[in-house]
Amino acid sequence: MTEIEEVAARLRAFAAARDWEVFHTPKNLAMALAGEAGELLAEFQWLTPEEAASLDEESLARVRSEMSDVATYLIRLADVLGVDLIEAIHAKIDEVDKRYPPLTS
Amino acid sequence: MTEIEEVAARLRAFAAARDWEVFHTPKNLAMALAGEAGELLAEFQWLTPEEAASLDEESLARVRSEMSDVATYLIRLADVLGVDLIEAIHAKIDEVDKRYPPLTS
Amino acid sequence: MTEIEEVAARLRAFAAARDWEVFHTPKNLAMALAGEAGELLAEFQWLTPEEAASLDEESLARVRSEMSDVATYLIRLADVLGVDLIEAIHAKIDEVDKRYPPLTS
Amino acid sequence: MTEIEEVAARLRAFAAARDWEVFHTPKNLAMALAGEAGELLAEFQWLTPEEAASLDEESLARVRSEMSDVATYLIRLADVLGVDLIEAIHAKIDEVDKRYPPLTS
Repeated sequence: MTEIEEVAARLRAFAAARDWEVFHTPKNLAMALAGEAGELLAEFQWLTPEEAASLDEESLARVRSEMSDVATYLIRLADVLGVDLIEAIHAKIDEVDKRYPPLTS
Repeated sequence: MTEIEEVAARLRAFAAARDWEVFHTPKNLAMALAGEAGELLAEFQWLTPEEAASLDEESLARVRSEMSDVATYLIRLADVLGVDLIEAIHAKIDEVDKRYPPLTS
Repeated sequence: MTEIEEVAARLRAFAAARDWEVFHTPKNLAMALAGEAGELLAEFQWLTPEEAASLDEESLARVRSEMSDVATYLIRLADVLGVDLIEAIHAKIDEVDKRYPPLTS
Repeated sequence: MTEIEEVAARLRAFAAARDWEVFHTPKNLAMALAGEAGELLAEFQWLTPEEAASLDEESLARVRSEMSDVATYLIRLADVLGVDLIEAIHAKIDEVDKRYPPLTS
């Protein structure tokens, strides 16, 4: 199992053990993901670019926590929809690669 | 390299080849992630729960594409901040596990 | 009628004339609002604070358009839920006023 | 003064009295708005459409509070950018009106 498959399996068992599957519809998971993205945003909103680039320990811990919430819902959504995230990412990078060719020196 | 490290390395090279590193501040990446989460949301907003749970091929392709955008910015942000996403996810699941114990039968 | 009541009435008639009322549930409208907030975000994500503070005509037009989308869904949601937005805003400012007293000179 | 101009004036004085103007850049305000839109979303994410359409008093109070946060940042952003929100909304509705003509009976 890859590391993402492992997380997906853990989340699947987690939801099953709590009867949460009924809540984990694609629509609800997309909302939960966006809500967590909003919380991540809130960590940065009043910071200057410099402050945001050198977070203290406490802020970084909060940011890490929000990032893991986003990741959790993303992996759960992918599992529910049967989407292979890593494959989808590489396909997307290939596509952007063609749209924005690298600079040449 | 794990699959996420591989994506992170690819994105790092991608940004470097285009001189995009200056744009990829944590603040900007958090914004980009939230923007893509909003686009993912838009795919589901007018669907009934039933429709959202049985997407046709075309909708699923769009959803997959938006999910890969979210994932891309999340992995890039983790790389820029030095966050180990998989470790953070497991730590978060451990924590939620204590807060919401599973149902017993 | 206040200016917001006028917009609310116009949006109500607009939805009725298109049989869109069935889509305009509070849940869906909250999603649409957040999706538009994400598009607004996207207008600013790669800009420096300086660039974001002095938008050219074209960018400002796009920002204005995204802001009106957010406002539209917010006013529509308030109408559907029977929320008086202006009253709610003043109540919220009163509350924040107590939490963060003004600086004294 | 219209009701929105009144709110805008109050928020302007509020920010000035706290030396918050430096934080209220368009970029930061767009982030704050999107963050609050995410919190609004969170109020609805696990509800069925039926539950979301018949909120109890407590949930509705939270929703009203989140809506006022979104509205506050939207009006503040409009003030900072010199955007006339009501005019922008009517222009947008005119535009959508042409794109999606009403049903005829």
